[in-house]
Amino acid sequence: MKLSGVLPPICTPFQNGALASDKLRENFDRWNKNGLSGFLVLGSNGEAVYLNEKERLTMVEVSRESIPLSKIMMVGTGMESTQETIEFTNQVARMGGDCALVVTPCYFKGSMKPQVLYDHFVSVAESSKIGILLYNVPQFTGVNLDPAWVAKLSEHPNIIGIKDSSGNIGQLGEIIYLSKKGFAVFTGSAPVLFPALCVGAVGGVLAVANAIPEICVQIYNLFREGKMDEARALQNRMTPLAKAVTTQHGIAGLKIAMDIAGYFGGDPRPPLKKPGKDAEEELKRLSLELQNAHLAGSS
Amino acid sequence: MKLSGVLPPICTPFQNGALASDKLRENFDRWNKNGLSGFLVLGSNGEAVYLNEKERLTMVEVSRESIPLSKIMMVGTGMESTQETIEFTNQVARMGGDCALVVTPCYFKGSMKPQVLYDHFVSVAESSKIGILLYNVPQFTGVNLDPAWVAKLSEHPNIIGIKDSSGNIGQLGEIIYLSKKGFAVFTGSAPVLFPALCVGAVGGVLAVANAIPEICVQIYNLFREGKMDEARALQNRMTPLAKAVTTQHGIAGLKIAMDIAGYFGGDPRPPLKKPGKDAEEELKRLSLELQNAHLAGSS
Amino acid sequence: MKLSGVLPPICTPFQNGALASDKLRENFDRWNKNGLSGFLVLGSNGEAVYLNEKERLTMVEVSRESIPLSKIMMVGTGMESTQETIEFTNQVARMGGDCALVVTPCYFKGSMKPQVLYDHFVSVAESSKIGILLYNVPQFTGVNLDPAWVAKLSEHPNIIGIKDSSGNIGQLGEIIYLSKKGFAVFTGSAPVLFPALCVGAVGGVLAVANAIPEICVQIYNLFREGKMDEARALQNRMTPLAKAVTTQHGIAGLKIAMDIAGYFGGDPRPPLKKPGKDAEEELKRLSLELQNAHLAGSS
Amino acid sequence: MKLSGVLPPICTPFQNGALASDKLRENFDRWNKNGLSGFLVLGSNGEAVYLNEKERLTMVEVSRESIPLSKIMMVGTGMESTQETIEFTNQVARMGGDCALVVTPCYFKGSMKPQVLYDHFVSVAESSKIGILLYNVPQFTGVNLDPAWVAKLSEHPNIIGIKDSSGNIGQLGEIIYLSKKGFAVFTGSAPVLFPALCVGAVGGVLAVANAIPEICVQIYNLFREGKMDEARALQNRMTPLAKAVTTQHGIAGLKIAMDIAGYFGGDPRPPLKKPGKDAEEELKRLSLELQNAHLAGSS
Repeated sequence: MKLSGVLPPICTPFQNGALASDKLRENFDRWNKNGLSGFLVLGSNGEAVYLNEKERLTMVEVSRESIPLSKIMMVGTGMESTQETIEFTNQVARMGGDCALVVTPCYFKGSMKPQVLYDHFVSVAESSKIGILLYNVPQFTGVNLDPAWVAKLSEHPNIIGIKDSSGNIGQLGEIIYLSKKGFAVFTGSAPVLFPALCVGAVGGVLAVANAIPEICVQIYNLFREGKMDEARALQNRMTPLAKAVTTQHGIAGLKIAMDIAGYFGGDPRPPLKKPGKDAEEELKRLSLELQNAHLAGSS
Repeated sequence: MKLSGVLPPICTPFQNGALASDKLRENFDRWNKNGLSGFLVLGSNGEAVYLNEKERLTMVEVSRESIPLSKIMMVGTGMESTQETIEFTNQVARMGGDCALVVTPCYFKGSMKPQVLYDHFVSVAESSKIGILLYNVPQFTGVNLDPAWVAKLSEHPNIIGIKDSSGNIGQLGEIIYLSKKGFAVFTGSAPVLFPALCVGAVGGVLAVANAIPEICVQIYNLFREGKMDEARALQNRMTPLAKAVTTQHGIAGLKIAMDIAGYFGGDPRPPLKKPGKDAEEELKRLSLELQNAHLAGSS
Repeated sequence: MKLSGVLPPICTPFQNGALASDKLRENFDRWNKNGLSGFLVLGSNGEAVYLNEKERLTMVEVSRESIPLSKIMMVGTGMESTQETIEFTNQVARMGGDCALVVTPCYFKGSMKPQVLYDHFVSVAESSKIGILLYNVPQFTGVNLDPAWVAKLSEHPNIIGIKDSSGNIGQLGEIIYLSKKGFAVFTGSAPVLFPALCVGAVGGVLAVANAIPEICVQIYNLFREGKMDEARALQNRMTPLAKAVTTQHGIAGLKIAMDIAGYFGGDPRPPLKKPGKDAEEELKRLSLELQNAHLAGSS
Repeated sequence: MKLSGVLPPICTPFQNGALASDKLRENFDRWNKNGLSGFLVLGSNGEAVYLNEKERLTMVEVSRESIPLSKIMMVGTGMESTQETIEFTNQVARMGGDCALVVTPCYFKGSMKPQVLYDHFVSVAESSKIGILLYNVPQFTGVNLDPAWVAKLSEHPNIIGIKDSSGNIGQLGEIIYLSKKGFAVFTGSAPVLFPALCVGAVGGVLAVANAIPEICVQIYNLFREGKMDEARALQNRMTPLAKAVTTQHGIAGLKIAMDIAGYFGGDPRPPLKKPGKDAEEELKRLSLELQNAHLAGSS
């Protein structure tokens, strides 16, 4: 299995407030047909912070049953505590996850100095039965992993990659250049998928790929085929929707976009709330424009 | 029981990595003799984010046994999810907590709009069997509660106060002025305890009060007695240590200051780590200087 | 002449886009009767950055003619270049300014390390024929002066004070405590005038004092007379207007508030523009409420 | 003349504190032979904020004499005041500048709302006798131009381009996509020159091009020839030096790099100061490594 391509950080479906495993299975039925190279379970967009322990395990279980063995099953296992991160990572390993995505601990931002983060990741890597990827998402954590420190971490045999969601392409390029050959660098920001591929990223873990996987995959494929102008053009058409379901309307917006695209999106968990009718109309308009442009481009 | 005075957000003692209930009881034996009006259990400085569910319950249990009924037992119960916050708050209520401190949810910073936070706190207040206090700590959460919205929340009969750790005295003054009469406003920042009292705060929930409760209490008492110059002078002498155990060296530094003062501090949980020998020497020096100044002032 | 009390950073009046000296003189006629201890000429609120060299000199000249010798005439002389700051400061000295306020250079924020700023201020102080005050205004400059470095600068015989507009009362208290006895520490933030006095500030250089000098002066006097509750109460009533003419509507709002209070405010220079009718109505309402409260309090 | 390619924002040479026109002419003698498509005079890196009016005019004059008519002569003319910006822009036009780079006014950050900035740029464009380019440099100004507003401004016939120094490639891509066809979008950040070209930028205005113009030009040319891997590789080798002369050591570092490369760099003006010996050694090492890699690549 190669760490590359497009993976959605899958949303967690709720019905009447409860995790809806059947809806998740239905979503997988369609996701599995769209050229995705794998899935991230229990990522930020999976509302992992709103799930209790039992629900988290259910998500892993159902995902394991639904994800073909040929595709990557990456699972978010990062906790604030080093010890708890190790324990959950190995539980995921036992349940069949292929690799673990470990977010930077962040509650005590001021104390998360580079050496502290380095030691945390090395401790997890040493004790983990599956390979781990670093997860850098400063807009949520207030903590940023410096490229030089990522490069040091890339030397560890059990640290196999990184998802960088900063959207900072200069930083992404430095990480790729400085890290060990073969270290898998994913962008976590759909609006910069194309430039991320240009500087050498192996793929993207992209929120919007929950709703429009085929378009994300097409950008990736166009790039791989050397069709730069077409890849850039499709990126430009996708960016407005990609921004609307992240920075603008967040997960609630992403779930609406899924509903529009025929997946089960549903409601987020409180305190998150659905945006108003205006947001819904805007998301419909953006989805329609993108779909039309995409069809026109394909014909 | 009156919501006022000085409360330490109590540290969680670990021995060989495990929660050490006996050490906690010993700390309470001394804390109970120092004029503190109560305690915050499971606050940020209690490393609550590093405790599992069982450990959190143990902390509540041991604290309930150790805290006299005449003193406030406030417990941190805020989770990212509204529902989980309600459930844990009521569990704490059943275990005898007097009131709950509910932090702003924060993982999805961009989505935590004022109305979203308002609805979260009202939902919790509606369902909680004990009174709740808002907890505003932007340096950890990246989210700030606006005074006008705090004032709206203060109208709810079950929202009885706030701990504002921003250190922003202008904001604290506005919260006090705009909120309902009787709404208990605490500062959570020891370096501004004195000016916080000047603008009308009822007291402080102060990390450094784990190590030097008697000095924090003395500032509070001097202020209450109208001895402004003495209160200001003692504040000025306390500030260097107060900053060293928060912004500079964090919880690890606070635990060292506890050890120096004869409490059980011990090690923090990884990823947090003890600072080096230099920090320890500096904390010893600051503690000694403060103790000497304090003794000189009392004589 | 004692460096203390309330000083407005005087606004620059424009008519048909040109500096209107006669309007400035008229404003001084009223300002001189209101208990102010002095004036800051060419401060941020004087739109100094929008004045050419000739206009700056006119402002100094007219102010020198209008300010009684018993009151402080402080002049903003800080430029990006050390050499130009020295030259302009000495020109102001020759024109009769009492002291100079020197802002932190800031265009190359990343290069403005503490030692660089220290050397800049010492160079200016060494060559200046009048005493200088440091000007710390991070919200405009993106640069903050650390209390420990201010304390070092306070040892220089020709560095006689600071205007700190950060609004950070903890920092203000530290500056006062750490600096040389007699070093004059002013707050530059009207919403925290009262707590600033509590921690030991000698006074305030306050934008809103352009429009309501008598109220700012009354807060100062109440505090000096030990009437803490009354001082705090008046501060609370003043804060909404003070915020409206700074953080909310800026100089354009301040000039409207001056017009409402019977001074000549007029228009700011482009790119600044007058806020809409709504802002004007709000400023009228806030001014009226404050005036009523003030009158009620005085009777 | 086509607006594209690589332009250095030329450094201003000082000898004994005075502007050294002869040194500037010598630098031009070499710059003119290195494939640069033009020059930015009086940019941030030209220490424009440290020059008085006469010195600014000298810089324009000497540059006009030194820059061949076939190359672009862009001049930084942005002032805080709209009126002064117009006047200086037209003075530059009379002196033979080809186009003007107008920075966002920024002192009153909080008041620089999108509409205020829009009106400022339109006013300048309406009155300017030469085409203007917007200059977005949030790291210095604390103000950011939103892509949608840039797109609106791009419709004005006399607003012909932008230099975006944010380093944000997602934003750069949006500006290019949303703006009028033919609107010239330059990056102002050398560490992201390659990805900027990938998303459609026409070129770069790059500090490091003062010292190593031939390498910046080569990246540009490799990209134009479709040699993506080589362009990316050279970018990666250039990035360390590009960062060292901007974010790390600033203009003082850039001038050292110029000295190393055989140009006249010299000292910056105070308050800027030369970094220590360590920085100089590091810059020598980085320059040498880059030169070696470049030669190896060319052979």
